[in-house]
Amino acid sequence: MFQSFEVTARPEQGPPRLAALRGEMAIEGLDGFLIPRADAHQGEYVAPRDQRLAWLTGFTGSAGFCAVLTDVAGVFVDGRYRTQVKAQVAKEYTPVAWPEISLSAWLKDQLPDGGKVGFDPWLHAAGQIASTQKELVGSNIELVRCDNLVDRVWEDQPEPPMNPIKAHPIEFAGETADSKITRLAKTLQEAGCTAAVITLPDSIMWLLNIRGSDIGYNPVAHGFAILHADGQVDLFMASKKLVVPLADQVTSHEPDGFLDAVAALKGKVQVDLGTLPQAVADVLNDQMVDGGDPCALPKACKNDAEIEGSAEAHLRDAVAVIETLCWLDAQAPGTLTETQVVTRLEENRRRDNALQDISFDTIAGTGPNGAIMHYRVTEETDSRLEDGHLLVLDSGGQYLDGTTDITRTVAIGTVGDEEKACFTRVLKGMVNLSMLRWPSGLAGRDIEGIAREPLWAAGQDFNHGVGHGVGAYLSVHEGPQRLSKVSHVPLKPGMILSNEPGYYREGSFGIRIENLVVVQDAAPLPGGDDDRAMLNWRTLTYVPIDRRLIVVEMLTSAERAWLNAYHRDVAEKIGPRLSDEARRWLDTATAPI
Amino acid sequence: MFQSFEVTARPEQGPPRLAALRGEMAIEGLDGFLIPRADAHQGEYVAPRDQRLAWLTGFTGSAGFCAVLTDVAGVFVDGRYRTQVKAQVAKEYTPVAWPEISLSAWLKDQLPDGGKVGFDPWLHAAGQIASTQKELVGSNIELVRCDNLVDRVWEDQPEPPMNPIKAHPIEFAGETADSKITRLAKTLQEAGCTAAVITLPDSIMWLLNIRGSDIGYNPVAHGFAILHADGQVDLFMASKKLVVPLADQVTSHEPDGFLDAVAALKGKVQVDLGTLPQAVADVLNDQMVDGGDPCALPKACKNDAEIEGSAEAHLRDAVAVIETLCWLDAQAPGTLTETQVVTRLEENRRRDNALQDISFDTIAGTGPNGAIMHYRVTEETDSRLEDGHLLVLDSGGQYLDGTTDITRTVAIGTVGDEEKACFTRVLKGMVNLSMLRWPSGLAGRDIEGIAREPLWAAGQDFNHGVGHGVGAYLSVHEGPQRLSKVSHVPLKPGMILSNEPGYYREGSFGIRIENLVVVQDAAPLPGGDDDRAMLNWRTLTYVPIDRRLIVVEMLTSAERAWLNAYHRDVAEKIGPRLSDEARRWLDTATAPI
Repeated sequence: MFQSFEVTARPEQGPPRLAALRGEMAIEGLDGFLIPRADAHQGEYVAPRDQRLAWLTGFTGSAGFCAVLTDVAGVFVDGRYRTQVKAQVAKEYTPVAWPEISLSAWLKDQLPDGGKVGFDPWLHAAGQIASTQKELVGSNIELVRCDNLVDRVWEDQPEPPMNPIKAHPIEFAGETADSKITRLAKTLQEAGCTAAVITLPDSIMWLLNIRGSDIGYNPVAHGFAILHADGQVDLFMASKKLVVPLADQVTSHEPDGFLDAVAALKGKVQVDLGTLPQAVADVLNDQMVDGGDPCALPKACKNDAEIEGSAEAHLRDAVAVIETLCWLDAQAPGTLTETQVVTRLEENRRRDNALQDISFDTIAGTGPNGAIMHYRVTEETDSRLEDGHLLVLDSGGQYLDGTTDITRTVAIGTVGDEEKACFTRVLKGMVNLSMLRWPSGLAGRDIEGIAREPLWAAGQDFNHGVGHGVGAYLSVHEGPQRLSKVSHVPLKPGMILSNEPGYYREGSFGIRIENLVVVQDAAPLPGGDDDRAMLNWRTLTYVPIDRRLIVVEMLTSAERAWLNAYHRDVAEKIGPRLSDEARRWLDTATAPI
Repeated sequence: MFQSFEVTARPEQGPPRLAALRGEMAIEGLDGFLIPRADAHQGEYVAPRDQRLAWLTGFTGSAGFCAVLTDVAGVFVDGRYRTQVKAQVAKEYTPVAWPEISLSAWLKDQLPDGGKVGFDPWLHAAGQIASTQKELVGSNIELVRCDNLVDRVWEDQPEPPMNPIKAHPIEFAGETADSKITRLAKTLQEAGCTAAVITLPDSIMWLLNIRGSDIGYNPVAHGFAILHADGQVDLFMASKKLVVPLADQVTSHEPDGFLDAVAALKGKVQVDLGTLPQAVADVLNDQMVDGGDPCALPKACKNDAEIEGSAEAHLRDAVAVIETLCWLDAQAPGTLTETQVVTRLEENRRRDNALQDISFDTIAGTGPNGAIMHYRVTEETDSRLEDGHLLVLDSGGQYLDGTTDITRTVAIGTVGDEEKACFTRVLKGMVNLSMLRWPSGLAGRDIEGIAREPLWAAGQDFNHGVGHGVGAYLSVHEGPQRLSKVSHVPLKPGMILSNEPGYYREGSFGIRIENLVVVQDAAPLPGGDDDRAMLNWRTLTYVPIDRRLIVVEMLTSAERAWLNAYHRDVAEKIGPRLSDEARRWLDTATAPI
């Protein structure tokens, strides 16, 4: 379970694997083959068996894909990974700035006379294939379903995971599987659908009140499900995983029966074309209604048990983080390295019996490494925390009662004024969003600018969303709720999100401050509009924000009051749970500014 | 040209007209007929001949439609007009809260067994018809093209307008029609289209550097055009209007040849399905490419001549507004009425020789009338400006060099603390948006929340967008740029928009503060990100904001500094142009707070 720091892929392994893949392409008469990061469940994390992109190219980021043609191999990565990809892939691979350059545009450029580009229909969502095909109209380039050619040449490819599931008890779930199945079946009836196909593992876990451990950091088991409008569920999951009883309405089957069962469905079938494998879409065709995964929104809107469980998990998680920050502050600049911080933090988290796993690889980036947004420290990059550095520490835990995700940026020794000014701007954005009250009906897009505005005023910004959804002992990145320019889903009470503005100066320093927050109905205010339902946040995360990095005169009085009240809450809620040493440290760290 | 205050439609006229219309429906075998506010050009303003909705129902708002069935007649209006519609229509008409209730949902509810609903294919955009038809699938309700049945029963329907056009000179247009035609034709070639159909009058005016006066307040002439990818233009406009020479590439035709000319087009034709009449779409079918009106974006991004012309028009317009405000302040509370203010303001505007028209009916709403967002004062509603009232004064002019639109809210006598607190919140939003600098690429939706946040914090908000696009001596409401939750078009340098947050308490008072602003490239800041293009605003409007309504301690130091600097600019730019009396008034009105 401890985070590893090994270098999982090396650039020099790429070229021979690429040559072998091209051999298979030649046998199949293909001019290209697509290698996505995703598995059949389109999640952010994949099992070792499904790490085809990293195995082939060396690139280990959480998003991206490779398009291998006979004479060029493009590795498509987004803004977060532009620096990382250059270090991880051999010169035989060409990094491509995606989504600015789309797959279709790149293919048209590389294959002006057209060609056949193969893909594994289990690993690509039907919606992606359809839009790429549409963009390719008139180009003479054809997308062709085929076997997975990487699997053919990957000789020591790991087996699929086969870990047993466990029950997620009602005190944490807050609603029985029976109740969830019944109310979702009703929505299918109302939509005129006979069934819904569910291919996202966290949806299946949520619906059936179970958890698994097939992939790292996410408590999910791989499987597929069909939810019928009559309230029955067919679950397609290896029987050796099914060691706990399921709800009465659930009939379990081996996974290889899934496609036939889908093909046998009659009437309209609700699917999420954004994640449904093309292989499944191929047997449904005109029966499909793109109504989304029926679990997505109900899962996102946490009930009271899930919210209170998450809140309690955050209080315990704060103890681990604060004990770590106290220890860190006691070390002289220039003594610790990033991996030591990661290990100490994980040790502190593991003292809690409810910890099941960390929720993602801890990001501990000091100095210039802090500017790499999704930095994962390895033995090769492990750097010393030097005087004047900012340390970005972004981590979380998977507890039986909730999922945490917290970032704090910590001063190492004496930090420069420029860093402090930037930190204060990030803080202002994070505080202004925390204080926000907004009319019901708005989406993340409508309010995320509030967290950026202090940076904008200084000609600065950051290239990631302000926040992502978070599950209740489920995925640390959960949809559909987001604080992002691409998010048009209205925010609703019970949704847990991160509030995490940042600032990154390449080669120099990084800053990010992150709390998790829950959407709630805002209490009416005297003088407020009578008929206007408004929402605001309940904060879940209670860990001090480094006062040494704040330029106090840059704060408005309201921002300063929020920070002092927040630190008072931290002292009250977490202080009594700490060691004597950490409690003394916390008194100083939470003193009013 | 002077604004009239007559009551243009009376509720009691509605029922007999409705009965006559139902007679025609019966003759045609129809179960319903749709009466939009729009004419064939889908603009906000329509000629007297096209005021079918007002003639039939009495409702005179600038948006909405009526669906007449055999036993019910729904008048669909948005949030701005919910109060107004109740006062204007007879009980035979049922106001419907649109768009919350869609036409299709209402029809399905009213016609559970289905039916035939007629519509005039010239008055409905193809996109609207398509989406309504899609929503009606499975309902047995059919939309049926037919003659305009209102025109059949409207005996004294006015003739179409036939006013001569005039040239829009190069010193104001900043680019020749030749140049515009050539560069737009090139975009058609690049898009693989042989032609574009243009049905929006302001697009035709902009493209050909002409102006007209077929409808009130908008300097446009009715007509249609076909822009060919080879750089030729066919203009379909009554020859009696064409009294000035047109660019060499333009061939003029009578309007009745338009549909045949469209039908004769070969290849792909670019259209804007959101505004293209269904009648035109019917002759194009598969040839259509929904690429938008090719003039829309180039027209929205004003060139230097247009921006400087608008800026100069605003300085002269400010003189008229300030002279009016000075006069207004000299009158005792309880003496003036709303129409007197409107008339005085228009008299002051008419002293400028370049004034061609007002740009819309002045909104002068005092006390409770201020809460009616699009209030048009009539002889019946004309109210006295009483002590304690807020007067919302929203007006603008059409000058040869630019279009203005300004709102100020003025204290009449001694105003209450609640009004002042609300005014200060609206001001803070308006100022914060004015001060905003934001990364290039964002749309109105992404930043308009900045202008609402101070109200949100108090549990308040307003039910209209923060701003609309404005033309350069063209429509005062111009797309595609908007500061609105429905606007996804990136803001670009040269776009003129209004910045006009407000607050409305029904039956009590209204507040709105509006400046026009132009998007410009923001000058780089020291310490700002090197590679991040940013935008900000240049202000066009220079008229003081009522200091007596500001609760100074509610402003941040930055907001206060902005206001004082703005008032200093007002005094410098406008002071020298004023009468002695108004200059003395301005000194007080612009003193620092």
